[in-house]
Amino acid sequence: MAKDMTLLWGSGSPPCWRVMIALEEKNLRGYNQKLLSFEKMEHKSKQVMDMNPRGQLPSFKHKDYVLNESYAACMYLESQFKSQGNKLIPDCPAEQAQMYQRMFEGLTLNQKMADVIYYTWKVPEGERHDSAIKRNKEALTTEIKLWEGYLQKASGSFLAGKSFSLADVTVYPSIAYLYHFGLSEERYPKLTAYYNGLKDRPSIRATWPPTWLESSQSQDTLKDI
Amino acid sequence: MAKDMTLLWGSGSPPCWRVMIALEEKNLRGYNQKLLSFEKMEHKSKQVMDMNPRGQLPSFKHKDYVLNESYAACMYLESQFKSQGNKLIPDCPAEQAQMYQRMFEGLTLNQKMADVIYYTWKVPEGERHDSAIKRNKEALTTEIKLWEGYLQKASGSFLAGKSFSLADVTVYPSIAYLYHFGLSEERYPKLTAYYNGLKDRPSIRATWPPTWLESSQSQDTLKDI
Repeated sequence: MAKDMTLLWGSGSPPCWRVMIALEEKNLRGYNQKLLSFEKMEHKSKQVMDMNPRGQLPSFKHKDYVLNESYAACMYLESQFKSQGNKLIPDCPAEQAQMYQRMFEGLTLNQKMADVIYYTWKVPEGERHDSAIKRNKEALTTEIKLWEGYLQKASGSFLAGKSFSLADVTVYPSIAYLYHFGLSEERYPKLTAYYNGLKDRPSIRATWPPTWLESSQSQDTLKDI
Repeated sequence: MAKDMTLLWGSGSPPCWRVMIALEEKNLRGYNQKLLSFEKMEHKSKQVMDMNPRGQLPSFKHKDYVLNESYAACMYLESQFKSQGNKLIPDCPAEQAQMYQRMFEGLTLNQKMADVIYYTWKVPEGERHDSAIKRNKEALTTEIKLWEGYLQKASGSFLAGKSFSLADVTVYPSIAYLYHFGLSEERYPKLTAYYNGLKDRPSIRATWPPTWLESSQSQDTLKDI
């Protein structure tokens, strides 16, 4: 039981989901956790600010070691619990290189997705421009095509080859987010196959965003991407 | 001699500089390398696009493994050459946690810095707003104060404690970039001490951006941050 760990998280947030998948993969369960609401601004509450002065989720601790950055938490958990649960960094240098490369490219995918989905939330009304919205959507489309191409050329079912790795832990939540926000399942067949193929992996099923299960409301922000 | 490695790079770019520091720290020298010019748009040349479809620098390869993302290259080099040169990931769990946390917070520092320095380059003329410039500057100031606070509380001379680590490899170039663009040396004494204290570290001196050495022109973009 991982009683020396604490996770404050929000449903659907790719960074929170990454950490939860990593914990499941490493058989780290029974940690202290609390689901908070972004809508109610609970990520700016005192409880969060005390753990994370940036006021962001996830806020994560092992003992008194702060690991609020989701990539930091994933790397640390794999390093500290190497022989527990599933091994998340391949030994083969070629696969390891590809794992790191895809993992960090995932940050660009996530950024370009956020630029589209959060546009009206991030940009004050008087500063919004249709030309910027169009450019952000084009950039996201180019980015998604790149990933579709990677999966076309892939030598296995996962982002870094034949085994599930930290690349999947970190990038899968962003890909699921795209579909949650209405990305066409037909337009990107390899990406869709990857998305659907991992839905039933135990670590992913166990951590699927609860608000996505509750609500049948479909989002269509990304339908023309 | 690291003859099985190739690096295409641009002078002053924090992502390029990170990889060069990591290579020096791991005693990987004599690699194939080519300095390209961002001004001449050489990062969009065929030579780069063939290695890196994103058209970005660094473009880096070990054998035929692509590691264009600077964080990916640094992690991979430390993993593959663990016992060569300087060890860049501390064994102590507390220091290791802090190393990963600072390393990934460094991406936020770099983003907020880029939002200010590259504003007119990234935002087309008709979409620029003084309110956005002001907000970006305030966000960068808040971010820099956070790092000044970390260094005030630090237990050693480095970002993750008593030894130079991947946190320094990845974040130092961004901090040096701040000063290159005119950040006040007086306003942030701990950050300035950290910046000056590492200037003479052999890996950093050996890789200092050549265009910064040539030009005595001082930049003042960040003088009021």
